[in-house]
Amino acid sequence: MSTGLFAYSDGQFIAEENAIVSARDLSVQRGYGIFDYLRVKNNQPLHLDDHLARFFSSAAELRLANGFTKEGLTEIVFELINRNNLPESGIRLTLTGGISKDSYSIGNPVLLVTQSPLQMPSPEIFQKGLKLITCQHQRQLPHVKTIDYLLPIYLQPLIREKGADDVLYHQEFVTECPRANFFIVTKEKRILTPQKNILKGITRQQLLKLKDLPITETDIRLQDIADAEEAFITSTTKGILPVSRIDDHSFQSPGPVTAALHQQLAFI
Amino acid sequence: MSTGLFAYSDGQFIAEENAIVSARDLSVQRGYGIFDYLRVKNNQPLHLDDHLARFFSSAAELRLANGFTKEGLTEIVFELINRNNLPESGIRLTLTGGISKDSYSIGNPVLLVTQSPLQMPSPEIFQKGLKLITCQHQRQLPHVKTIDYLLPIYLQPLIREKGADDVLYHQEFVTECPRANFFIVTKEKRILTPQKNILKGITRQQLLKLKDLPITETDIRLQDIADAEEAFITSTTKGILPVSRIDDHSFQSPGPVTAALHQQLAFI
Repeated sequence: MSTGLFAYSDGQFIAEENAIVSARDLSVQRGYGIFDYLRVKNNQPLHLDDHLARFFSSAAELRLANGFTKEGLTEIVFELINRNNLPESGIRLTLTGGISKDSYSIGNPVLLVTQSPLQMPSPEIFQKGLKLITCQHQRQLPHVKTIDYLLPIYLQPLIREKGADDVLYHQEFVTECPRANFFIVTKEKRILTPQKNILKGITRQQLLKLKDLPITETDIRLQDIADAEEAFITSTTKGILPVSRIDDHSFQSPGPVTAALHQQLAFI
Repeated sequence: MSTGLFAYSDGQFIAEENAIVSARDLSVQRGYGIFDYLRVKNNQPLHLDDHLARFFSSAAELRLANGFTKEGLTEIVFELINRNNLPESGIRLTLTGGISKDSYSIGNPVLLVTQSPLQMPSPEIFQKGLKLITCQHQRQLPHVKTIDYLLPIYLQPLIREKGADDVLYHQEFVTECPRANFFIVTKEKRILTPQKNILKGITRQQLLKLKDLPITETDIRLQDIADAEEAFITSTTKGILPVSRIDDHSFQSPGPVTAALHQQLAFI
């Protein structure tokens, strides 16, 4: 089905529906690849340098030498924005393992850049907040933005059955949601967020950079959640969003700290 | 690069190098898909029914309704063997998540069937045995043959640096290698293999079916490996192969039990 949008693939801008990868690509055969996703607002890419820095870091971790420079990718992103004219949207840069000669070793990585409409959560969704269920799991290579979303897609029926919106991973400590970072607000109005075994989100980074915010990266246990006054998540596609329930524990949605941060982040 | 081989893709037999998937496919975007791999010997598929049964089970677990029947897939496999005439080879059936409308929900799954030459381990490799390093990790959805091989491909440089051939996963208990099942032989000549949190291999199943074999599915700890007399692995592409070293612990390669089983399995 044609979307009328352009995508960048194999050195060219082509109709998005014609962007393909070989069936021998290591992404198709072994789930091996990385990506990044950035928001476009008023036809401007947000935090482009941060996203590109993470993209190159993810690529290096997975030994995907793509031959692209930061300047080259920046040019592609702006050209795509120019061609597609989707003022409120998201851009996804995917780098796959390439055609593998033996279905196991890395080939020449393939770069795909696509753009699609993005609607940020409405005020109603913000008021309602997110319902999470906890799930004992540690993502493999958590510091790399890999294409591995096998488990959360597998878990969708369970999430729906529990009347929830997403899962919250934990082992000894709480880590993250599959596509968002996690925060709690303590009774003392301190903001805590997991410090390790997570993907460090760009919105999370923005929050950590805010001056005079009583925020700490630390280890958080499930018990700390039960004792917390508020909880919220951050992501590129959601901004900051209150959590109204985790398993059987309810929170005010939004709590006052979350609401204040939401206002503050909107001006970044 | 043309291999001169046919592949089955989207209802047709086409040149393998033309087999493609959309960049919007859930395998490329989220690493979501399953596969199975069977051996062809003298132009005959081995244990085809077992592989197809597991393929359908994996597809059902990941909610990939592909509309194919066992008879339909059998026909495709035989037609591919007929067209390619690769008497000693492997056939891979891949089922991807399909084109996702939102990069997260499952689309219409895409079936790809490819064939490639397969050389079973030489007598020299059998004599030499495999060197393994242990790795604390539990595969996600271990009972499903998913396309997720992110970690073992990521670990290749470490494996080479340690002078090893592969990793052996464990948490509380030993589980499996990324592409093979694991066995030990105790001082009492009992054969033990992990019972849970593993993919149940077809060669492992064949071994468990052998009559009068003192073999038990049980929990195995790292300490049990240190106390074992022999270790070996099984897989479709390797048959049965001795393990000559796990971390710093060496084993006779092949031990007498492994050698006898190798002879016995060759006649199955």
